[in-house]
Parts: sequence; C-alpha cells; structure tokens
Amino acid sequence: MYDVAIIGSGPAGLSAAINLKQRNKEIIWFGSPALSAKVQMSEKIANYPGLGLIPGSELNKKFIEHAEALGIESTDVMVNGVMPFGDRFSISAGSDIYEARAILLATGVMSGKTFAGEKEFVGRGVSYCATCDGYLYKGKTIAAYCGSKRYEEEIEYLAEVAEKVYLFCGYKDCEINLPNVEIMTEKIEEVVGEMKVTGLKLKAPAAAPAAAPATAAAETLLTVDALFCLRDAISPGTLVPGIEMSGNHIAVGRDMATNIPGCFAAGDCTGTPYQIAKAVGEGNIAAHSILAYLSENK
Amino acid sequence: MYDVAIIGSGPAGLSAAINLKQRNKEIIWFGSPALSAKVQMSEKIANYPGLGLIPGSELNKKFIEHAEALGIESTDVMVNGVMPFGDRFSISAGSDIYEARAILLATGVMSGKTFAGEKEFVGRGVSYCATCDGYLYKGKTIAAYCGSKRYEEEIEYLAEVAEKVYLFCGYKDCEINLPNVEIMTEKIEEVVGEMKVTGLKLKAPAAAPAAAPATAAAETLLTVDALFCLRDAISPGTLVPGIEMSGNHIAVGRDMATNIPGCFAAGDCTGTPYQIAKAVGEGNIAAHSILAYLSENK
Repeated sequence: MYDVAIIGSGPAGLSAAINLKQRNKEIIWFGSPALSAKVQMSEKIANYPGLGLIPGSELNKKFIEHAEALGIESTDVMVNGVMPFGDRFSISAGSDIYEARAILLATGVMSGKTFAGEKEFVGRGVSYCATCDGYLYKGKTIAAYCGSKRYEEEIEYLAEVAEKVYLFCGYKDCEINLPNVEIMTEKIEEVVGEMKVTGLKLKAPAAAPAAAPATAAAETLLTVDALFCLRDAISPGTLVPGIEMSGNHIAVGRDMATNIPGCFAAGDCTGTPYQIAKAVGEGNIAAHSILAYLSENK
Repeated sequence: MYDVAIIGSGPAGLSAAINLKQRNKEIIWFGSPALSAKVQMSEKIANYPGLGLIPGSELNKKFIEHAEALGIESTDVMVNGVMPFGDRFSISAGSDIYEARAILLATGVMSGKTFAGEKEFVGRGVSYCATCDGYLYKGKTIAAYCGSKRYEEEIEYLAEVAEKVYLFCGYKDCEINLPNVEIMTEKIEEVVGEMKVTGLKLKAPAAAPAAAPATAAAETLLTVDALFCLRDAISPGTLVPGIEMSGNHIAVGRDMATNIPGCFAAGDCTGTPYQIAKAVGEGNIAAHSILAYLSENK
C-alpha cells in the first residue's frame, strides 16, 4: 500500500510529489511522464517567479528535470475511479487496482464538458479506459470520443476488438485511418439507454450561418453498445463518487482538504486563477496537509 | 494615487508585483530591494518546482533579476500603518503618506511576539519608525528594541536625538558602541504607562539552571518615555486596525481577501506552511483577486 496516490502530473501534482518524496513518503504518481501539456504548449510564461520570461516548453523541461533529480517517476496509466474504503482508498487505474492511505486530486480542468447522460451510464456502457473495458465489446458497435492525439493508440486497440467504431474527435488532424473506424462530423448531444447504453443523440455540425440562418440543427440517433470517453481529465465528480463540488471545481478549504477525509485537491481542479504559481503553491500546501493527515491517522 | 500598495518584498509580494505589473497596474511595493532575507539565508531549497536543489541566495538572486527584468522596484521604507478611507487606503510609510485603491499585505511572520502592552501604546510612546517619531523624544530617555542589524542605523539616529537610549537587541553581535546607548541583557516583559508610556517591566536573563534552580527571575522597572520597536514585520493587527486575525495569522478566504474590502493578504502572514511555493501561489491568487476588485470598484 502507498502512503499517497497523486492523480495528475501538472504543476500541482509535481509540487506535491516533490514535497512528499522529500519527506520519505511512499507515493504513486499517476500522469504522463511528459508532465503538463498545458505548460509545454504555452508560448511564453512571464509570471513564474524566479524564471523571468521563459517558453513553456523550457519550464516544463525544468519541471521534468526536477522530478528526475529526486528520482520521482510518474506512472502513465489513466485513473478510472477512486473509492474510499475505511481508512484507505482503492484506485482503479489502467487494468490494475492500487491502494493508498491518502489521495491528492491534481487533475486539472477538463477542456470540455461531459456529455449529457455520460455520468449516469459510467460502468453501464460508458468507459474511460480502452485497455480495461475494450474486450467487453468484442464484435460490437461502439462509439469513442478521443480528446487528444495521445489516445489514438487506444482507439486503434478498440478498432481491433469491436466490429465498428464511430469516432468523435475533440481535436484537429486526427490521423486514424482504419476500415472499421468511421470519423464523425456530428457532435455527441446525449448518451441514451435504459439499463445500459443503447445509443447517442447526435447534433449535425453547425452549418455556415449565411447558408442556414434559421434552421435548427438536425438531431439523429446513433445506435451503439458503448461510449469510450478518452480525455485528459475525468470530471472529479465521476472519478471520486461523493466528492463535494463548487460549480465545476472541487470544493476545498485553505488546507486543500475536500469533504472526504484523506482526499485532498490542488491546482486548476480547485478553481481559478488557472496559473502555474497557484498550482505549485496549492500542491505544496496539500502535501503538508497530507503529511499531517498521515501522522494523525497511523 | 496608486492602484495597489504591496507591503512586503518576500516571495508573495514579488509574485503579486509581477502579475500586477504585467497587467499594467500602478503599484507601489514596500520592502527591501534585497527581497527576502529568509530566502537569502536558506542553505538549500529543494522544493521550489523547476529549480531543483538551489541555494537560497541563488534563488533570491533569480527573484531580484525577475523583478528587475520587468522594471519593478521596491521602495525601501518601513510601513507604519494602513488606514481604510472610503474607497481607498492611506499608508503611512517612513515620513510620507501614500494612497492606494487596494492593499496587499505580504508581511511575512514576525520572528518573535509583540511585547505585552505594546499594541495598547502605539502612538502613545510606542513607535515603529525612528525617522518619523524620533524628534519627539529630543533630550529624553527612551528604549529601543532592535530586531535585526539593518536597523542599527536607526538606533544611531535615536542616539543623536535622545539623551539616553536603552537598547534591547534581538540578535547577536550588536555593533553599536555609543556613549549614551546602554546595551541591556534583560528582556522586555511589558510596556507600562497610563496615558503614555512611562516605563518597561524587565525580566533578568535566565540564569544557568544549575546555578539557580528554583529562584523566580527578578522583575525590575525601567523608566522611559518611549519604546521604539524596530523589527522586520509589524504585527498585522497593529498595522491595519480592525483586520480579522486567526491566531497569529491574517484570516483570509481562498481568494486571499481579508475582512476589509480592498485589503488582501498572501504568504506566511496568512498561515502555515511557511513555504516559498505557497507564498508565490498566494501572491498570484491575491493579484488576480485584486484585479477583479479594481475592475468592480472603478
């Protein structure tokens, strides 16, 4: 069992990982070893004190080097769910289950909302992990939402398993070209079903305003057995059942504690301003609160 | 009139100054141009993300360079008091009065408590500024508490004005050697007086335990007309009358707002953990809250 599971490898997760590692805690740190895509892609950052005007890619490189220097490595599997179990947490990630005494959610903000109906059908046709749940849909017809290029490999795996994949891309220049994958131009409007997912309501892509000034977009129903949502972040309410939210953000106190004992949050997922310095500061505070929590709950 | 007065040039003040300057606000930033003595004197800092293992002096140098690159300069005068006046604040600093629409308190934590009775006699014999109030005690007998070497010059000024100065030093190796300055070994126990300060209750320095196992330390009364307290930070309750405290810290919300509209706080003065990353994060949050406040209160 780990002392702490940190979910998210942006600046908040990194800051917490550094502090917890220095204090000799056993941590597992979930996230991309490339750390923050958001930092990496920032052209120039001028307000991270001590580094002057720095390209995001250079700052991200410094973050990676800092983690490496301390021997901290992230585990590059997607966390699908976190369940409190008495004095510990069970974390389902990739196809494995991990245990930790405390949790830090540093999941960032989702660049896009969840789909209507998505939350209701989690585990009943909606999945966040191709590796874990793909085999359940052998020979079936499924849909997949791919939020970024890094999940294209998972889409390819789904295409190996399923008979047909309807693919909805959240980014430009999707490079998937497989005979049983149909790239859709419509948008997912709602996930529908009864006991399980039976289909998706789709909305036609908006026509150019001049061409169709007053026509409502047509809605169609696509019959599928499942929807795989592959995004950089799962909504925290979906990830940790029962967690208290404040709008789209996790509700925390100044000590970064959530309403669930042992579960803390830091960074963009706790609210604005979405800033590197803020995330780093909150990761530091959360790490210190977690240290206090661990020592009180031995 | 300034948009914002930032009080304190540690990491929290710097972080706020960077963000406010970038957003083209007119700021006045009170504090030492050498920035944080605490950072400067740290042997090694390992948990400021992006900078690996770095000597405090080097990190402080990077902070100074960052400020310089943006053309931000601090004003090296001691702030003695902040008064809200309708939609603005009046700041008494050195021997001048400044005005600002919003305030950021980034004053750090005091390394030492205030003396009993100190707060009650502010302006009635207790002063925090030799330059401002020294002339009031021409030819008189006064006491001075000197919290760090950087105030020795002010002590020398007091010695020019007053007939006699009893000096209490908060650090080792005091280098003042003047005929009318008596360096005291006792500790200040309490400031006493009626309308004005009349004296100090002193406590003898603790004897070696073996030599005097059960004797209570002797208490003596020193007759003085004033006490000058020269420390790196004034207690926030003394600096800003009416500010809500939580123990020894300024009470703030997650947006770094205090109970006084337009007055924000960040860094060590808002509570533990006393960490650079936390201070920098809070300075960033406070700057963004101040930007919102300024735009709502034009």
